[in-house]
Amino acid sequence: MDALLKDIADRVGRAGLLTGDDVAARPVDWMTGAGCRAGAIVRPADTDELAAVMRLCHDADQPVVTHGGLTGLVHGGEAAPDEVVISLERMTAIEAIDPVGGTMTVQAGVALQRVQEAAAGHDLQFPLDLGARGSCTIGGNIATNAGGVRVIRYGMMRQQVLGLEAVLADGSVVSSMNRMLKNNAGYDLKQLFIGSEGTLGIVTRAVLKLQPILPSEQTALVACPSFEALTGLLQQMGHQLGGALGAFEVMWQSHYRLLTEESGRHAPPLATTSPYYALIESLGVEDESNAARFNQALASAFDAGLIHDAVVAHSNAQRQGLWAIREDIEGLLEALAPMFTFDISLPIPAMQAYVDALETALIQQWPQARMVVFGHLGDGNLHVSISVGSSDPETRRAVERRVYAPLAELGGSISAEHGIGLEKRDYLAVSRSPEEIALMRTLKRALDPQGLLNRHKVLAPDA
Amino acid sequence: MDALLKDIADRVGRAGLLTGDDVAARPVDWMTGAGCRAGAIVRPADTDELAAVMRLCHDADQPVVTHGGLTGLVHGGEAAPDEVVISLERMTAIEAIDPVGGTMTVQAGVALQRVQEAAAGHDLQFPLDLGARGSCTIGGNIATNAGGVRVIRYGMMRQQVLGLEAVLADGSVVSSMNRMLKNNAGYDLKQLFIGSEGTLGIVTRAVLKLQPILPSEQTALVACPSFEALTGLLQQMGHQLGGALGAFEVMWQSHYRLLTEESGRHAPPLATTSPYYALIESLGVEDESNAARFNQALASAFDAGLIHDAVVAHSNAQRQGLWAIREDIEGLLEALAPMFTFDISLPIPAMQAYVDALETALIQQWPQARMVVFGHLGDGNLHVSISVGSSDPETRRAVERRVYAPLAELGGSISAEHGIGLEKRDYLAVSRSPEEIALMRTLKRALDPQGLLNRHKVLAPDA
Repeated sequence: MDALLKDIADRVGRAGLLTGDDVAARPVDWMTGAGCRAGAIVRPADTDELAAVMRLCHDADQPVVTHGGLTGLVHGGEAAPDEVVISLERMTAIEAIDPVGGTMTVQAGVALQRVQEAAAGHDLQFPLDLGARGSCTIGGNIATNAGGVRVIRYGMMRQQVLGLEAVLADGSVVSSMNRMLKNNAGYDLKQLFIGSEGTLGIVTRAVLKLQPILPSEQTALVACPSFEALTGLLQQMGHQLGGALGAFEVMWQSHYRLLTEESGRHAPPLATTSPYYALIESLGVEDESNAARFNQALASAFDAGLIHDAVVAHSNAQRQGLWAIREDIEGLLEALAPMFTFDISLPIPAMQAYVDALETALIQQWPQARMVVFGHLGDGNLHVSISVGSSDPETRRAVERRVYAPLAELGGSISAEHGIGLEKRDYLAVSRSPEEIALMRTLKRALDPQGLLNRHKVLAPDA
Repeated sequence: MDALLKDIADRVGRAGLLTGDDVAARPVDWMTGAGCRAGAIVRPADTDELAAVMRLCHDADQPVVTHGGLTGLVHGGEAAPDEVVISLERMTAIEAIDPVGGTMTVQAGVALQRVQEAAAGHDLQFPLDLGARGSCTIGGNIATNAGGVRVIRYGMMRQQVLGLEAVLADGSVVSSMNRMLKNNAGYDLKQLFIGSEGTLGIVTRAVLKLQPILPSEQTALVACPSFEALTGLLQQMGHQLGGALGAFEVMWQSHYRLLTEESGRHAPPLATTSPYYALIESLGVEDESNAARFNQALASAFDAGLIHDAVVAHSNAQRQGLWAIREDIEGLLEALAPMFTFDISLPIPAMQAYVDALETALIQQWPQARMVVFGHLGDGNLHVSISVGSSDPETRRAVERRVYAPLAELGGSISAEHGIGLEKRDYLAVSRSPEEIALMRTLKRALDPQGLLNRHKVLAPDA
């Protein structure tokens, strides 16, 4: 690797290459704090430098691992000593904003929050939002097709990208920086790079779609008497709020009770005796009509027996208080550690039976097991937190099998929004048929025949 | 081909195979009425039959052409005597509707309008809409990534598809019938088949995303004093209507005047002296608040000098009367025949200069030239109709060069929503870089190495 690193240093300069202790000092996993084990970290200043680096790596048969903000949850950033990390941390420019067309052109290393703030500066919004906004990068959001809390209204990252530029494994640059909502001139190549976790190319720049701001946020926490009422409520809110439904987050009783009454971390805004709680948001241009519509929809839901209790936030502080329950991951960790967390999706009509059966199965195997469920119901996405009293790898695998296996028959997914990385790689066949995995391998071979990009991530080595 | 057709007949039966006069009697192009020239038309009853047919064709090195509703505009359905047409016309089932999850599962040969009607039966909508709704099929909508009049609110066909199933060139079946909004379990394979015009696989089934109905439609035609005012209006409507902006269609004066005053086909609702006219629609749950918000937005636009005249539709008949001007393609044909029509997209800030320069260039070459422009401004999509007094192929090519060449520098597209097919294939390099076209060829080779699927469409034969 030394000869290669010398060639790379010649191209990217002193600021562009980290080796030795500078590599080990970098945490690569925000959960464990583990240091980076890669042979080197290359920090190109622009696309040309990155392309040159990839040409060198390609010629030297050198595998690389791409790093964005390192906020992923599936060990996508792990690198072995014989790998070189490519970090986009110096490519953070916001290159252009077109407020008329509603687009922003950026380098892939820019943090999501900076994009959100730059859009707001033009009285527009970039609607993707997730907890890691301050650290995660647009390139990482694209590579993992990030989701978050506004998917029900605005879609995932895939829907926010109009164009992008990527460097392929051989160092060639594919620039597809489309700025229009409509462009059917041949294959839509950007789709290849969105959600493929850096295994088909390295995203270097992107054109993002901006949206009008909807400043009025009406928020309520409601209690539902049954799962049937909960899904009826989702449908009715869709009908009555039209395009204004901005969030429909659900907490199973296990989750709501744990974080309020049981832990004492939050005063319960509603009694903890209902089986399901939904956090509902309506987005609008101004408060008066948005509130009127929202309150009317809630009143109809009462009349229809879909909810039997509700609290509406009347201030931003109250609104944040309701969200704080839903987002209190720390509270979950405190109560359930050692804990395994899962990010799955399945058709909504199948959810209740799946959750009930999983809990029964867990308790059968581990009588002290606890399971807590919340999620983005409208997106079909559940986050399941499970504690069985141990976190050793074998226990983990046993729990994983319990969680994932039933999804095959239901047409569910082992990853709703976190991706596959290394963590879920060996379960890919639960959610994907042999023909689908074969086609993924065909694509990987076509774009990266030497297997240099994020080696063995997403797809296991060929048998 | 005879031995192959015998094998196919054994598999699909009498109803599944048309030959001889039955083939020639089928129009393949709704514009010219030209008959089908293919060696045979195969009409499989289901995916299994189609897969068996493709295995036979693959073994015999037999190229095929896929047919949906044949409403395309770029000669994608043309077939030579040595090709076999695969028509999905017998695969028209609506297999399932899930009103809770908001999904519909269909076979690819079902007509768009049937899907729209089936959704309405469950108090939901399928939002893709275009003039050919009665004939065009979901498979064709997917293969061409169809657009239409609601893209500014709901996106193109790509955004309406949750999952699909496709038969590959070798007859293998890739079933990716995802039903959830979120699924990041590996590469999103459906994206390969959306918008690739049947050159990478034949779409056989799909899971479609349904949306809540927005029954209130407020519509206005407004006159703008300048292009700057027009784009200011687009921005302001975006801000003031939030997610309710359902259409923002623009007619240049040339278009509006021709179809009203000049031809006498429509009484002009507004004087014909303004340079730009916009047809604006606001979608809402109920009329009262939607109308109030819409009228307030129009009043603000007056105050800001963005519009200097407006008419708001107060009945469905008035609404249809306004849309009739915008959609009167027959009126254009009557006035401009022989006429060439174009479907392009370009960044909104570049539009005015592009249109002006194009008109000047046309008149310089053909002093009697007439050019009429309308389009989906919010999508960056213009439809340009040009008459220069002749329709011979050489004149057509000369006009095409005038229209397409300037798009390269502007980052525009030679096809916004119609696709490439055969008609635009030789101009692909105007909108796509050599690296992009090389990557398209890589995908084509990886999925269809023998080049059997829609041969020489989208991508010209290798040099």
